[in-house]
Amino acid sequence: MLSTMQDVPLTVTRILVHGTQVHGRSTVTTWTGEDEPRRQTFRETGLRAVQLAHALRDDLRVDRGDRVATLMWNNAEHLEAYLAIPSMGAVLHTLNLRLPADQLTFIVNHAADRVILVDGSLLPLLAPLLPQLEPVEHLVVVGPGDLSLLDGCRPAVHAYEDLLAGRPRHYDWPELDEREAAAMCYTSGTTGDPKGVVYSHRSVYLHSLQVNTAESMGMTSHDTTLPVVPMFHVNAWGLPHAAFMTGINMLMPDRFLQPGPLAEMIESQRPTHAAAVPTIWQGLLAELTAKPRDVSSLQHVTIGGSACPPSLMKAFDEQLGVTLRHAWGMTETSPLGTVAHPPAGVDAEEEWAYRITQGRFPASVEARLIGPDGSVMPWDGSSAGELEVRGPWIAAAYYGGAGEEPLRPEDKFSPDGWLRTGDVGVISDDGYLTLTDRAKDVIKSGGEWISSVDLENHLMAHPDVTEAAVVAVPDERWGERPLATVVLRDDATADYAALRAFLESRVARWQVPERWALVAAVPKTSVGKFDKKVIRKSYAAGELDVTDLHTERP
Amino acid sequence: MLSTMQDVPLTVTRILVHGTQVHGRSTVTTWTGEDEPRRQTFRETGLRAVQLAHALRDDLRVDRGDRVATLMWNNAEHLEAYLAIPSMGAVLHTLNLRLPADQLTFIVNHAADRVILVDGSLLPLLAPLLPQLEPVEHLVVVGPGDLSLLDGCRPAVHAYEDLLAGRPRHYDWPELDEREAAAMCYTSGTTGDPKGVVYSHRSVYLHSLQVNTAESMGMTSHDTTLPVVPMFHVNAWGLPHAAFMTGINMLMPDRFLQPGPLAEMIESQRPTHAAAVPTIWQGLLAELTAKPRDVSSLQHVTIGGSACPPSLMKAFDEQLGVTLRHAWGMTETSPLGTVAHPPAGVDAEEEWAYRITQGRFPASVEARLIGPDGSVMPWDGSSAGELEVRGPWIAAAYYGGAGEEPLRPEDKFSPDGWLRTGDVGVISDDGYLTLTDRAKDVIKSGGEWISSVDLENHLMAHPDVTEAAVVAVPDERWGERPLATVVLRDDATADYAALRAFLESRVARWQVPERWALVAAVPKTSVGKFDKKVIRKSYAAGELDVTDLHTERP
Repeated sequence: MLSTMQDVPLTVTRILVHGTQVHGRSTVTTWTGEDEPRRQTFRETGLRAVQLAHALRDDLRVDRGDRVATLMWNNAEHLEAYLAIPSMGAVLHTLNLRLPADQLTFIVNHAADRVILVDGSLLPLLAPLLPQLEPVEHLVVVGPGDLSLLDGCRPAVHAYEDLLAGRPRHYDWPELDEREAAAMCYTSGTTGDPKGVVYSHRSVYLHSLQVNTAESMGMTSHDTTLPVVPMFHVNAWGLPHAAFMTGINMLMPDRFLQPGPLAEMIESQRPTHAAAVPTIWQGLLAELTAKPRDVSSLQHVTIGGSACPPSLMKAFDEQLGVTLRHAWGMTETSPLGTVAHPPAGVDAEEEWAYRITQGRFPASVEARLIGPDGSVMPWDGSSAGELEVRGPWIAAAYYGGAGEEPLRPEDKFSPDGWLRTGDVGVISDDGYLTLTDRAKDVIKSGGEWISSVDLENHLMAHPDVTEAAVVAVPDERWGERPLATVVLRDDATADYAALRAFLESRVARWQVPERWALVAAVPKTSVGKFDKKVIRKSYAAGELDVTDLHTERP
Repeated sequence: MLSTMQDVPLTVTRILVHGTQVHGRSTVTTWTGEDEPRRQTFRETGLRAVQLAHALRDDLRVDRGDRVATLMWNNAEHLEAYLAIPSMGAVLHTLNLRLPADQLTFIVNHAADRVILVDGSLLPLLAPLLPQLEPVEHLVVVGPGDLSLLDGCRPAVHAYEDLLAGRPRHYDWPELDEREAAAMCYTSGTTGDPKGVVYSHRSVYLHSLQVNTAESMGMTSHDTTLPVVPMFHVNAWGLPHAAFMTGINMLMPDRFLQPGPLAEMIESQRPTHAAAVPTIWQGLLAELTAKPRDVSSLQHVTIGGSACPPSLMKAFDEQLGVTLRHAWGMTETSPLGTVAHPPAGVDAEEEWAYRITQGRFPASVEARLIGPDGSVMPWDGSSAGELEVRGPWIAAAYYGGAGEEPLRPEDKFSPDGWLRTGDVGVISDDGYLTLTDRAKDVIKSGGEWISSVDLENHLMAHPDVTEAAVVAVPDERWGERPLATVVLRDDATADYAALRAFLESRVARWQVPERWALVAAVPKTSVGKFDKKVIRKSYAAGELDVTDLHTERP
């Protein structure tokens, strides 16, 4: 039996029109690094988005489904692009300006971007790549920049404000199917080429509704949000569209992401909400410790991107009275996966135990843990498995390229269509997720899993150990076994046997490594994480001085 | 270009599974009128919903699309029905126990309900109708009741708890299309037969998300909500499904809707949220004035169903420190249409001006005002028109009956598919709706509209007038003109000319009525509203003593 409800699609167009009409008085403030930030209303933002759509369609001949890229900081113009491009039926493709040149080049060509909107300040980054960016026909330069860098370049060059000037302030938006592409973002995978996730109007709309629920970020038109998290990656965690839906004022940091300017804009503009990765908050804490500023306006701060050290959360609580709220997500999950609001009715200590988890899933994110034998694990707080998720804003595939089939690599999507997150963890019986390892770092030993992170944490708790990295190495009998690589203090007295005994008192005996290697330092990636790929390669190449304490069955 | 997002339907099933798993520790408390209320967890509620679904499918042979009706108060079992019936693919049909017997009979037969779940306390109401309820095959009696009333009745009779006992606690829920029917509710129209609105899984899901946004009702698992608004009408404003989605604890008043028990349950159970029509709050205020109780737990109280007198809102503010929040909606709008959160940055007086409006629309409710000439009116706070709305939880038609086409009466749906609300009002440039008249009560005079409510309010401000009702009467020259019927105080000295002069100083001259009639009392409907239909009939039948002051062109 069918319902008698209207069949109205969920679209970014509706968010644009709604924010312009109903929340027209809300404001977007863009930091300029000078005395006065730039400020414009949602109404003006919406009308300028209309003008941008006219310019793109009428002058630049952007068609339905065409990709229009942005290489921009968080600012009012980027918000205009966020609204205009999907609403006209084109696809907003945000380019991550932190990526290496070869990856950026690959991404623009793979997406076949016809237009790039670029902040003038980012021309030095883009200009050298232009000869390789064949699909690009138009560059639209936002704000001041060194235009001489574009002398003789193939794409036509336009100034953003010139392009908008005098355009109509009304647009007959096309009727869109909610499953059409609205936006796309490439993951910066550590292996292989970057892969594109294509968000639909439906997924953006539903995600925005969820962000605005009180149990997620709880935004209202009485608040101001500071998205430090970049709009060039995973849609700034969905904040721009969610903000235009609910009328929360926006404070845009533009390129001023250093602790000093951030402290200054928080003190002077008094945002109530903010979102950023842990390193930003770490930097801000150091800044505020050195030079106190009033950040007491912050009530709802979301922290994600990587696990936040509990010490940082406690420092914000105790020194600044600001609650950092843990969240988990990834490019493939739009990204909102979990938020760690503690449950009701727990004491202060229990509350901390919940706050350092990844948090709870909203109704639209269905979750399961797949254990070592491929079966679904119970939610008991101790049975570990790889997290798989399903829902209307979760990826089913990656973009295959124009005219190509979507990509569904087996290691990323289960046969029944769930996303394999690559994260291993446990879920408590009240639905809180705790992630422990990346799946590729888990040691699969005789049908059981050993957490490398768990062993590392225990080892690093030993007074003689400064760093420890544990990786899986092949083992004839057990499939895989852990190899512990350890950096000892200069004055260390412990030997392998002592470390092994130390571990035996802390974890199940079968989890304790037999193979040990002393190293001068643990190799690290460009963002400072342990680079376990390098350790495994060194081991395979026989470059490590390994001691095998294997004298009995593990 | 298509997205690469998963195609996951929005269903009540997801809400059921989510609430059971992730918010399993939240509670449903049902008032019993005795010392101890009944309390059960969401986990238990969800598992009992599974058992109910088994009973309905395996024993009562309920199929996909079958209508299963409820004639129940707000209690835990009703919540179980709310979750089980849509999830199994059947249609939850809530019966309004306040309707007259002939309308209830019509509704059950028109919907062709195969099963009715009925509270034992409501058997005296249902039993006499049974001989006329031909489609009904099964009665499921919830809680204690006088079963002898059902002696010899045709439908099979089951006790709810017996039916659930021993059933499996797992169910392989069917894969549903989100546009399938989830629930239905008939409007109690003042003219013609009641008409059924059929909600889809999609509309219920989206509506629940909206209810949970901070800008609407802002519910979280740290709160407790008291839905006084009945689950037998318009899904208790969407609260049951929204609650199971977000884990807010529920306090169910069952049949104890009198001011005394309500005050007692608020004081003892300390809900933070509540929702009810103005008369409930009026009664509660009188009760609390007579016998003070602590209701300070209430933070977020939604008031709707009819316009709330500002004096009542102020009394709650000042005497009890409780904020009543105006909302507007109707059966055809699921019902959330607007909520009157005042905007940021206004002073206390302006705040009141906003709070007494109907409020602002969420993004999913698109609104327009259609003026007297059929054109769309601007949002300027003064151009009046009939409110039309569009969105994914707004009705496109009424249920036509089994195998029949949906009904799309012209006076309820525009040719391009918008719902005609029948309400006339204005919208401010910041998106706040103020309703003034029902469209049928507006006087269409020479291509302009005259608000009958506006004239009534002005007349009733005259010291000699105790009541005044204004209706449209036919006029040869202007199409319609206002007729003022007035009840004067016993010691009144004003005559028609004086009243007319009084109005002329307050409204545009062309709006002032020529036709006047003194009456002993304004006829009223059963709920105490002016019954303008009766006045118009009396006028047409020449039963009123009308004085025509018409001496010149209006």
